[in-house]
Amino acid sequence: MIVVMKPGATQQDVQHVADLVLEFGLKEHTIVGTDRTVIACIGDKRSVDKSALENAPMVDRIVPILAPYKMASKEVRKTASEISLMPGGPTIGGAKIAVIAGPCSVESRDQILRTAQAVADAGGVALRGGAFKPRTSPYSFQGMGEEGLELLAEARERTGLAIVTEVIGVEQVEVCAAYSDVLQIGARNMQHYPLLEAMGRQDKPVLLKRGMSAKLEEWLLAAEYIINAGNPNVILCERGIRTFEDYVRNTLPLAVVPELKERTHLPVVVDPSHGTGHAHLVPSMCKAAIAAGADGLIVECHPDPERATSDGAQSITPGALYDLMTPLRRIAEAVGREL
Amino acid sequence: MIVVMKPGATQQDVQHVADLVLEFGLKEHTIVGTDRTVIACIGDKRSVDKSALENAPMVDRIVPILAPYKMASKEVRKTASEISLMPGGPTIGGAKIAVIAGPCSVESRDQILRTAQAVADAGGVALRGGAFKPRTSPYSFQGMGEEGLELLAEARERTGLAIVTEVIGVEQVEVCAAYSDVLQIGARNMQHYPLLEAMGRQDKPVLLKRGMSAKLEEWLLAAEYIINAGNPNVILCERGIRTFEDYVRNTLPLAVVPELKERTHLPVVVDPSHGTGHAHLVPSMCKAAIAAGADGLIVECHPDPERATSDGAQSITPGALYDLMTPLRRIAEAVGREL
Amino acid sequence: MIVVMKPGATQQDVQHVADLVLEFGLKEHTIVGTDRTVIACIGDKRSVDKSALENAPMVDRIVPILAPYKMASKEVRKTASEISLMPGGPTIGGAKIAVIAGPCSVESRDQILRTAQAVADAGGVALRGGAFKPRTSPYSFQGMGEEGLELLAEARERTGLAIVTEVIGVEQVEVCAAYSDVLQIGARNMQHYPLLEAMGRQDKPVLLKRGMSAKLEEWLLAAEYIINAGNPNVILCERGIRTFEDYVRNTLPLAVVPELKERTHLPVVVDPSHGTGHAHLVPSMCKAAIAAGADGLIVECHPDPERATSDGAQSITPGALYDLMTPLRRIAEAVGREL
Amino acid sequence: MIVVMKPGATQQDVQHVADLVLEFGLKEHTIVGTDRTVIACIGDKRSVDKSALENAPMVDRIVPILAPYKMASKEVRKTASEISLMPGGPTIGGAKIAVIAGPCSVESRDQILRTAQAVADAGGVALRGGAFKPRTSPYSFQGMGEEGLELLAEARERTGLAIVTEVIGVEQVEVCAAYSDVLQIGARNMQHYPLLEAMGRQDKPVLLKRGMSAKLEEWLLAAEYIINAGNPNVILCERGIRTFEDYVRNTLPLAVVPELKERTHLPVVVDPSHGTGHAHLVPSMCKAAIAAGADGLIVECHPDPERATSDGAQSITPGALYDLMTPLRRIAEAVGREL
Repeated sequence: MIVVMKPGATQQDVQHVADLVLEFGLKEHTIVGTDRTVIACIGDKRSVDKSALENAPMVDRIVPILAPYKMASKEVRKTASEISLMPGGPTIGGAKIAVIAGPCSVESRDQILRTAQAVADAGGVALRGGAFKPRTSPYSFQGMGEEGLELLAEARERTGLAIVTEVIGVEQVEVCAAYSDVLQIGARNMQHYPLLEAMGRQDKPVLLKRGMSAKLEEWLLAAEYIINAGNPNVILCERGIRTFEDYVRNTLPLAVVPELKERTHLPVVVDPSHGTGHAHLVPSMCKAAIAAGADGLIVECHPDPERATSDGAQSITPGALYDLMTPLRRIAEAVGREL
Repeated sequence: MIVVMKPGATQQDVQHVADLVLEFGLKEHTIVGTDRTVIACIGDKRSVDKSALENAPMVDRIVPILAPYKMASKEVRKTASEISLMPGGPTIGGAKIAVIAGPCSVESRDQILRTAQAVADAGGVALRGGAFKPRTSPYSFQGMGEEGLELLAEARERTGLAIVTEVIGVEQVEVCAAYSDVLQIGARNMQHYPLLEAMGRQDKPVLLKRGMSAKLEEWLLAAEYIINAGNPNVILCERGIRTFEDYVRNTLPLAVVPELKERTHLPVVVDPSHGTGHAHLVPSMCKAAIAAGADGLIVECHPDPERATSDGAQSITPGALYDLMTPLRRIAEAVGREL
Repeated sequence: MIVVMKPGATQQDVQHVADLVLEFGLKEHTIVGTDRTVIACIGDKRSVDKSALENAPMVDRIVPILAPYKMASKEVRKTASEISLMPGGPTIGGAKIAVIAGPCSVESRDQILRTAQAVADAGGVALRGGAFKPRTSPYSFQGMGEEGLELLAEARERTGLAIVTEVIGVEQVEVCAAYSDVLQIGARNMQHYPLLEAMGRQDKPVLLKRGMSAKLEEWLLAAEYIINAGNPNVILCERGIRTFEDYVRNTLPLAVVPELKERTHLPVVVDPSHGTGHAHLVPSMCKAAIAAGADGLIVECHPDPERATSDGAQSITPGALYDLMTPLRRIAEAVGREL
Repeated sequence: MIVVMKPGATQQDVQHVADLVLEFGLKEHTIVGTDRTVIACIGDKRSVDKSALENAPMVDRIVPILAPYKMASKEVRKTASEISLMPGGPTIGGAKIAVIAGPCSVESRDQILRTAQAVADAGGVALRGGAFKPRTSPYSFQGMGEEGLELLAEARERTGLAIVTEVIGVEQVEVCAAYSDVLQIGARNMQHYPLLEAMGRQDKPVLLKRGMSAKLEEWLLAAEYIINAGNPNVILCERGIRTFEDYVRNTLPLAVVPELKERTHLPVVVDPSHGTGHAHLVPSMCKAAIAAGADGLIVECHPDPERATSDGAQSITPGALYDLMTPLRRIAEAVGREL
């Protein structure tokens, strides 16, 4: 952490900051520059609230140096984590890219079984589907609940696909874990800490979506909460961020993929469905995500998007998914992966 | 809801959409323009997922017309809601502007009692303070828990101030409600629906912070969740949004105040502490918020900001709070309010 | 400037950076921390491209310390600049707040003379009006050109108001300067450097609007271009920034006002018309801007907004402007100013 | 265009709007819905300022239907435009993807000739390089001017590469056109209309960068200015947008590529250097851009990035460029293109 003093700071102002730094259990090192004095604070005190120092007289700003996450970082684990989606089942984070697909919501037995079969036929490794739905409006369809989970489990039995489903609150963790293989935390819940901690006590992998305006560090700290609570199997999922762009539901910032590969050992999945909001943009963004180095895709797929109860606009058909796999495979090979 | 067809849409394409509209239980009205055909969908079906239609062939986009919130809107209640912060206590939403102040976290008995006294002396009506803290990092101070709530209750006893405290999860609702007067939902939890519904079952007012990238409609729909679950006493709190600006922690968009006054009957409070992140900007933004028509302020105030365990950089001192009240009072009068 | 090395950087990596720093004419000071090494670079070399160092091996990032603007900063001039809008005429930046108002475009003699009279009657000190219009679409009304400037000059003669008009290109500088008193640079041109330099060679004050996504430092550097080219009379104008908010045309970040007051001696004006895009939000934002400490307002005002050729939605009527002056005056007094 | 009335609008309010619509030369069609009345306005009047109607009593908002650009749109030209970068030279917009590379600034004869050779060796078709530099700070290196253009022309002679250079103002159009093949408009000038119009009078292709916060429609309208002024050869270049993300200089929204392919016949190039700001992210984003369907890349490449006078942090070395071509070629083939 570096404290930058304002121009005109006196020696007394500097000393006051230096004293506070020592009081916080850090060492200080003062550098007098041409126009400014800066005070480097040495020591690993992630728990110190750096912002407090900003209130000392003549302090201009505080520059943090140390990344505040640890277990999610490459500083702790240098090689990529390869995570099994289910015991003995497909993995994510290794050479093979994982395609996860399925509807936004489980709507009926027929819908979910047909979709599951299509996902398996296309070469996907997991089925996504929501049984408990976090909906912006209280008047929207809220999901089938446990009945939906039962249908997902039946789909697994028939196809061998792993099941990925969203957990919307601490109360649903147990029931979701009972039926599914990968527990998803949605974008809106990325900083719901009680849920992160509850997930940390599970032994199933967690797919952690980025909050729609989360900075990279905040996202990795959310992963840190889960790992810190005992579950190292966190899969990061980029699903687009909120910007001024209005031709898309969210802006999909694919540079996050190579940046995460620099910073963390955790696998990175891209969701081009929420990441764009429009089915006609999904295939291109699937290709781009693989080209950018993603470890997997999670794609909304529905047999009749016009009549989907949620997210119809961003769902592709089983046929479109199937056709997409050939170019995806070739791109994966071009970047040294397989699919 | 209006469906805009692409140029070149055939009559068959239009008919297909019209049929889907009828299938959804709405009436349709087709208008053939110079370049485009649009299909107006008539009827109040808030539960229909409008996005599905976008997937029909030759549909360009969907334009929603109806605001999807109802009970939070002025269409249902035309006059402003005036909400009591505690039985027989001060209200918010009437002529008198409410000032709520206090530390980010309850840190000690001395700290909270001193601050409470200062808030009361300055003319504030409520004390804010966090006992359960949602912290970005798992390594940061997480709050004093129930002990902090007890100290807040003691501060109320001594000063008569109402107590505002944040509830970070469904599990904390009961204990927070037992000790405090107003239950706060933080920005990160604005769309944690289980918490919104749990708050809807309480009989204490809820201060609902705007999510840091929430659109107005999403925020009002979050309020709608609470009202719909049975609690009409929702206070909206603007606390700044995430933008590209980096001299502030958040960008404080004060135009939201008059816009909300057009759309909703709920009281609107502004938090200039989170809304800027820097103590030196807080007094000006307090003044601006009152001038813009806010019903109240919620301000972070700490007797020793340099040593605050959280949010020190954005906390003002009791002295600064006291000095601020005179100009605030005059501005309130200039806009036809009192304080 | 501080260079932060990656964890694992060797002494050789650090030495390589230190050598580059010396090569750039700066002194270096290396600090070995618990996890990271940082290299402080000492010396005032604003011309060095700091980004180049980032490409050296094992460099994590570069943290600039020095603000790159100089003449616009308070480091050079500690007291506020008070600028005359016309020789012997009203000033901006002193105790008295300046209200500038008028239509987006000059449309006709009748329109501009009626508006000018209304602005003068309300107590405004300057008339704004565009003769050359930068329009997003080539098919929109592009302004009356020199004829519009003549009408503005006539309005000045009749009312004594100073004239503020936008210059859209280097070619229009001379003709605009011939007729008007204050030359405006629009948001889209904030970083059109040839225009900034041409303005620097004029002896009339320049009203420099913030670019719609300009950071504070970029805005002040644009002012620096003008001052550096010879014209110290720059008035900064906040007109809203582009964010994800969609109930407004732009988000008006009023905290910029007190922040600029910390950093620069230049006067700060707020444009609540572009800053919101909707007439019903303009009065509240005028009040909030004064409360926040603005030195002036620039407001779009049109006698018949429904029929305005541009920006009708955000123009208030002369009557609304007149009514607004009483609360504005009282707020000005509450913050120690007059109007 | 559709006018949405507020709830509670009377028949008189609706009639008033209908009269205004007729006055503007449009036909109107009123639809009375369950809660709201909407008025569809029929006719192709791109010149009407839609915003004015918003000021009529009881109007809630205006929804535009028609895209305001015409010549840039697929409504006018359905097949992709293939543009020659130089007479008889390589094209962009056809099956073959064009790679443009070179330094940010021309710095010396040796630097530019070495880079040009490297670009040619790697298989690039054009050399980029700035002779006139738009720099954020007046104290930064401003480019070599005409001498730089001469060096670029010499590089063309030696390598056969087309030359792409930025024009920073109307005054530089002639001299830049005299030496180079493709004229670039930088992001900061995307809405500098005098420059757009001057470019429209040239017979060389124009590479039009997206403004850093430009909406799609604004960008296409900027292209429309150039085409409307006589030059149909516009190449669109995405270079990243400004968002809250801070690990990148800009956020690169690659979904814009397939979206533009839906809307316009103009070729689309991606600039992953400005689009990320960091050399380590550039190769992945080059791959992703091709996978997303881009017609070309424009990449900053410097033989000694650590010592580049500008944009060093985002420049890749000639070796990195060379190595990148093999995966790019394979990805191009996977998406049905060649390179």
